[in-house]
Amino acid sequence: MPEKVLVYSRFPKSLMQRIGDQFDLLDAGGRPPHEVFVKHELDQLRAMITQGSSLLNGEMMDRFPKLGAIVCYGTGYDGIDLQAASRRGIAVGHSPGANASSVADIAITLMLGAIRRLVVADGYVRSGDWAAAKPSPMMRAQQGIRGRKVGLYGMGAIGRKIAARVAAFEAEVAYFSRSRHDDLPYQYFPSLDALADWCSVLVIAVRAGPETHYIVNAGILKRLGEDGYVVNIARGSVIDEDALVAALKDKIIAGAGLDVYAKEPYPPGALTAFPNVVLTPHIGGHTLESHRAMQDCVIANLAAFFQGKPLPYAVV
Amino acid sequence: MPEKVLVYSRFPKSLMQRIGDQFDLLDAGGRPPHEVFVKHELDQLRAMITQGSSLLNGEMMDRFPKLGAIVCYGTGYDGIDLQAASRRGIAVGHSPGANASSVADIAITLMLGAIRRLVVADGYVRSGDWAAAKPSPMMRAQQGIRGRKVGLYGMGAIGRKIAARVAAFEAEVAYFSRSRHDDLPYQYFPSLDALADWCSVLVIAVRAGPETHYIVNAGILKRLGEDGYVVNIARGSVIDEDALVAALKDKIIAGAGLDVYAKEPYPPGALTAFPNVVLTPHIGGHTLESHRAMQDCVIANLAAFFQGKPLPYAVV
Repeated sequence: MPEKVLVYSRFPKSLMQRIGDQFDLLDAGGRPPHEVFVKHELDQLRAMITQGSSLLNGEMMDRFPKLGAIVCYGTGYDGIDLQAASRRGIAVGHSPGANASSVADIAITLMLGAIRRLVVADGYVRSGDWAAAKPSPMMRAQQGIRGRKVGLYGMGAIGRKIAARVAAFEAEVAYFSRSRHDDLPYQYFPSLDALADWCSVLVIAVRAGPETHYIVNAGILKRLGEDGYVVNIARGSVIDEDALVAALKDKIIAGAGLDVYAKEPYPPGALTAFPNVVLTPHIGGHTLESHRAMQDCVIANLAAFFQGKPLPYAVV
Repeated sequence: MPEKVLVYSRFPKSLMQRIGDQFDLLDAGGRPPHEVFVKHELDQLRAMITQGSSLLNGEMMDRFPKLGAIVCYGTGYDGIDLQAASRRGIAVGHSPGANASSVADIAITLMLGAIRRLVVADGYVRSGDWAAAKPSPMMRAQQGIRGRKVGLYGMGAIGRKIAARVAAFEAEVAYFSRSRHDDLPYQYFPSLDALADWCSVLVIAVRAGPETHYIVNAGILKRLGEDGYVVNIARGSVIDEDALVAALKDKIIAGAGLDVYAKEPYPPGALTAFPNVVLTPHIGGHTLESHRAMQDCVIANLAAFFQGKPLPYAVV
């Protein structure tokens, strides 16, 4: 008899297939579980799968009196109140590093896409404007990547992979993070301000939390300069989106590449109107190999939990 | 009195500004020069600037009895009949390597853009389909870059830069070119067939010419497999475009990223209808730093010629 596991967030069914082969999944489809399942079922529930960005506070945890494990699909766990979980003796797991290469790739895709105007260029060809030799201010040559100063905010598993990729493009790489990593060949800046002053491309790869909330604000954006770009593959909450919209509108910076937004799946309407931004629907980890690796972590965490063992991929 | 130089191909005016500061440019704007300028002017003409892909045969050269130098803006010179120029004692120059980094960047931009579906993803966000949770088969997870086998056809200045970038993405790199380069750490295949059998992403970075015409045909595309991609930043003539359209239509391959086309600026209409291709309007070398470097080569070639010296960047 397979163990019952609640699927708390909304996931495409295909992502739960392998996990569903081993566990009896109660899929709430992103709706409040107590509106979908009867109390008796939730009372017995011992484990759940969630997206790290889905809000999960102590009050919600209390609706599941036997809950012992919250297993995040992916690296992030910013939506989980870790203290509340800890107080209730609930273990929290995630999938560290499983999607790092795929997310790093999206960071580079967005950086290149924004700087080289890929979406505009593709539209210019498809619309027939190129064939008609129609002038397009958006197609004017920009400074490329070579020789650019690219600043990384955050230097975890994903940050390291982004840095290695950026360096291959003959760009300079520097970073700011909580701690300095002396094993890395990149220049370290002691503050985000100093990094933003130095770089023209700021790539956000930091773990989200209260201390990073809105930290990329109007002041940071201004430091990037009018040829500056911001790329965010971490969490939408790290950027003040109103400030970003204003900086793009007033040409304080040249463009942006975003995979994440403050309120997903609802990027600000003003943002979707800019031609000099590239927007992806939080698909950083969305590759076959990355999903497989994340599912492996979820399955390993759940299997260990039901065997009474510590989670192999616990949030530290 | 600045020397007169014919601008043979159609160039955006902005690209000729620095060159125009030093030479008296007669800009034909891509039209037949004898329809734009009086015979007397063309009779006196000693040098011209052209795009390497613009057709320039012996018959055309004979319209300029005093022509001594054909200076290509960019790396390529496939449109120039080199034998015809040689027989007439006309020197041919180009801008070797000047745009290599920018072109290599576009190759990676197209590879990532095609595999990670950047244009589709951006449209999915902007249209509101993401917010509406509208299902999209095109947004299904694909195999990403890590662990992929990427084959490079051609290993010149641009090929080397593409290879270095691809390797940073944790992909395997191999190549086929006329000659084996023992200084490189990548696997060499002795034929394009063997390379295409091995790889799932084929990046074309070969110098165009009669021997490469249509060499990427239906057979080569089929060898890439149904998860295969072809990226072309070299010249459109290297791919049989009809075969490419058929391979995309019949799902013989998964997608393509193209910066160049057989007849520019006219990509086949069928190609512009596919969502799984990314198309750019021959902007490989289109960055500020690359244009500056190409202009430096053009100016150096013209200055040397008018001083009676050999071209510093002669086509060898």
